[in-house]
Amino acid sequence: MKLFSTETYINRRNALKNALGSGQILILGNNESPMNYTDNTYRFRQDSNFLYFFGISLPGLAALIDIDKNEEIIFGHEYTIDDIIWIGRQEPLHVLANKVGVATVLEPEKLATKISPAVMYLPPYRHDNKILLSNLLPISLDQLAPSESLTKAVINLRMHKAPEEIAEMEKAVNITREMHLAAMRATKGGKYEYEAVAKILETMHRHHAELSYPVIFSVNGQTLHNHYHGNRMEAGQLALNDSGCETDMCYAGDITRTFPVSGKFSETQKEIYTAVLDMLESSTALLKPGLMYRDVHINANRILLGHLKNIGLVHGDTEEMLAAGVGGLFMPHGLGHNIGLDVHDMEDLGENLVGYREGLARSTQLGLRSLRMARELETGNVITVEPGCYFIPELIEKYKAEGIFKEYVNYAQLEAYYDFGGVRIEDNVLITDTGHRVLGERIAKTIAEVEAVMAGGF
Amino acid sequence: MKLFSTETYINRRNALKNALGSGQILILGNNESPMNYTDNTYRFRQDSNFLYFFGISLPGLAALIDIDKNEEIIFGHEYTIDDIIWIGRQEPLHVLANKVGVATVLEPEKLATKISPAVMYLPPYRHDNKILLSNLLPISLDQLAPSESLTKAVINLRMHKAPEEIAEMEKAVNITREMHLAAMRATKGGKYEYEAVAKILETMHRHHAELSYPVIFSVNGQTLHNHYHGNRMEAGQLALNDSGCETDMCYAGDITRTFPVSGKFSETQKEIYTAVLDMLESSTALLKPGLMYRDVHINANRILLGHLKNIGLVHGDTEEMLAAGVGGLFMPHGLGHNIGLDVHDMEDLGENLVGYREGLARSTQLGLRSLRMARELETGNVITVEPGCYFIPELIEKYKAEGIFKEYVNYAQLEAYYDFGGVRIEDNVLITDTGHRVLGERIAKTIAEVEAVMAGGF
Repeated sequence: MKLFSTETYINRRNALKNALGSGQILILGNNESPMNYTDNTYRFRQDSNFLYFFGISLPGLAALIDIDKNEEIIFGHEYTIDDIIWIGRQEPLHVLANKVGVATVLEPEKLATKISPAVMYLPPYRHDNKILLSNLLPISLDQLAPSESLTKAVINLRMHKAPEEIAEMEKAVNITREMHLAAMRATKGGKYEYEAVAKILETMHRHHAELSYPVIFSVNGQTLHNHYHGNRMEAGQLALNDSGCETDMCYAGDITRTFPVSGKFSETQKEIYTAVLDMLESSTALLKPGLMYRDVHINANRILLGHLKNIGLVHGDTEEMLAAGVGGLFMPHGLGHNIGLDVHDMEDLGENLVGYREGLARSTQLGLRSLRMARELETGNVITVEPGCYFIPELIEKYKAEGIFKEYVNYAQLEAYYDFGGVRIEDNVLITDTGHRVLGERIAKTIAEVEAVMAGGF
Repeated sequence: MKLFSTETYINRRNALKNALGSGQILILGNNESPMNYTDNTYRFRQDSNFLYFFGISLPGLAALIDIDKNEEIIFGHEYTIDDIIWIGRQEPLHVLANKVGVATVLEPEKLATKISPAVMYLPPYRHDNKILLSNLLPISLDQLAPSESLTKAVINLRMHKAPEEIAEMEKAVNITREMHLAAMRATKGGKYEYEAVAKILETMHRHHAELSYPVIFSVNGQTLHNHYHGNRMEAGQLALNDSGCETDMCYAGDITRTFPVSGKFSETQKEIYTAVLDMLESSTALLKPGLMYRDVHINANRILLGHLKNIGLVHGDTEEMLAAGVGGLFMPHGLGHNIGLDVHDMEDLGENLVGYREGLARSTQLGLRSLRMARELETGNVITVEPGCYFIPELIEKYKAEGIFKEYVNYAQLEAYYDFGGVRIEDNVLITDTGHRVLGERIAKTIAEVEAVMAGGF
């Protein structure tokens, strides 16, 4: 099992203890997750908070930090001969615990005897852990009350990535890069989407990595989270590939590229692609500590509306359109989110606690309301920048019928785009002391670069 | 979404209603399953019982059959414009319901108002469905009482595969066959296990199929469920590949092959491989309705002990060894299990209800106690036949130290096998009126066939 240095985990826990001052903290690990019966499980994925503070990626663990007693305990079973027969020889749990700086390992049954009624815990998202908490405390399921001070302290630590974390994320992006190049090379007219997905996944598995989120690969890129891969791809269509891996230490990459099935962008495709690339590059160029990411989102919409005006799809004053939220019709999602041990980092801890702050409330506008990261950027944040432009016939028709944005949108012109699909281009960016750094080696991004990869050029 | 004919589902439900006579039946579908936060989910897998009676593979559904009122209802949400933006245009739920012969679709919130306290339900295995049942009925989680008569009626139907199910299973085995041939071709000294796994999964995805269970691929084949794929493979080792896919209708294949990393079996490997192949072929030859599968398991152990005696690893009277359970030291698992919509078919409904019957109790002997299917075979059963022979150093050392089987086992001779690993060979077999049929096209199985595939022969 790959772990950071013992000191890394000790320091993280000390930082958490210092932030909270006193009390008892329970961090639950994940269990195996049943697919179609108890013992046929999905791949095991340890809880990210457990990984952050205790590192050990095995099912059936829990950990308790008692600040006042200065006690740290991992709860879990040691392996038996039956385990060796079925899953092989393993490092004993107490040896692993030692590697993450924890001296005490107890059987899980002991957990109940160690817990105080005021124990702090994080919001549970697995139903088995909800039931466990309800039994442990004991309170009914609807009375579970995760600790906001613990949650905020964990967020504050995990928001700021340390060098060893950034190295892992860079590794994730570089494997993800290979997945994207493989997808471009595997795409051509007459092939099915799942054939390209097969190459994406093969490339990932060859690097001994796993998915950080389900693959979005589709000629219907206008559908934002399209996990259906059964379409035959035809020359003239765009393929949108939003996929990424996590390393064996569970740090995520999240990259999107969009490319023409034929290998050559049409003129119409070039216009929209250029708009989205401009949004990506202009947004990225701005990034530095202190900048509010909400403003970057809004500025990306400004750039988009400028391009759409030039193409003749909208008209009117750009700032007026921006205020009205016209951009949301074409990009009904946020510009990006934090990324780290989770692809939407710490979404289990609460989107608003992670991406917003006091005095910065969530918008209700289509698009902006889906922005997960709105607050001021800080050194060590890693965020996605993922502008897009989509033509969703059902949404356009609905807005048209309801007269929404009729003073800005050239609905008649949009009909020619009903089979366009969508474009999204996404990078992962670290905020540095002085600005930013796009993680990983460059992944074909300009029209010329993408066409060169698809032509087998590199 | 691929469905069988409307009549298929109507007939299955009618058979269930006839078997039970009266009462109310609740069949819960599965929901999305969270990985590291609520919205980052594992791939959706519908519950197999829901698939069997209602076919629709979408999350968030439940179905109620009221035998006395002659009412069938599917509960679920229709799609909204938000769903179209995020997951694309879908067939409306009432259209899908119609295709499986159900006229009434209601919002999920209505379910509580339609349920009677005596409603019958199956054993839940997903924790969210346990909580749902507890809230619906309402009773506490530890008071949930699945209906044994419903469970038995469902088992009796699903145990007997209809022609359209057998066709799907044959398709699963044929894709699985391609996965196995790809694994053999991708295996050679110096490669890592995950590189072969990458080819297995690529082949599967190219056929638009998914895993029916986590891949077992290892040079440590003596570990029965080895999901670690990080070893470098070396000439001289055996690779064991136990992997299978499910089709888009969720019928499973489950195949194992074992082959030499170098492409050529050593003499020692040939001896053990020949023993296991004999177990497979002799066991398969016996299969027909009326035969107790427990007896086939025991006979396979008899064959194994005969071979081990010839090789000089055990000595003494074979029948005596058989009675003592010596075979379990070398094959600590059962000969096979039912397979269908689940790889261990209906394991959620209870292993003993599926594979045993009144008057046929489970053994406590190592090996035989893990046999999932013990009862008499019937026409339409589909079972795995998966004999194996393993050398598990930890288990052998333990038995040796404790003096177990010391009158039969030549422990000194076994030391030379501590780095042997294990051999397992597995087919999927349909029980027919007159005998049996191995499903799918033949998958390289003899030493000559396996070596020919690895040499690139076919």
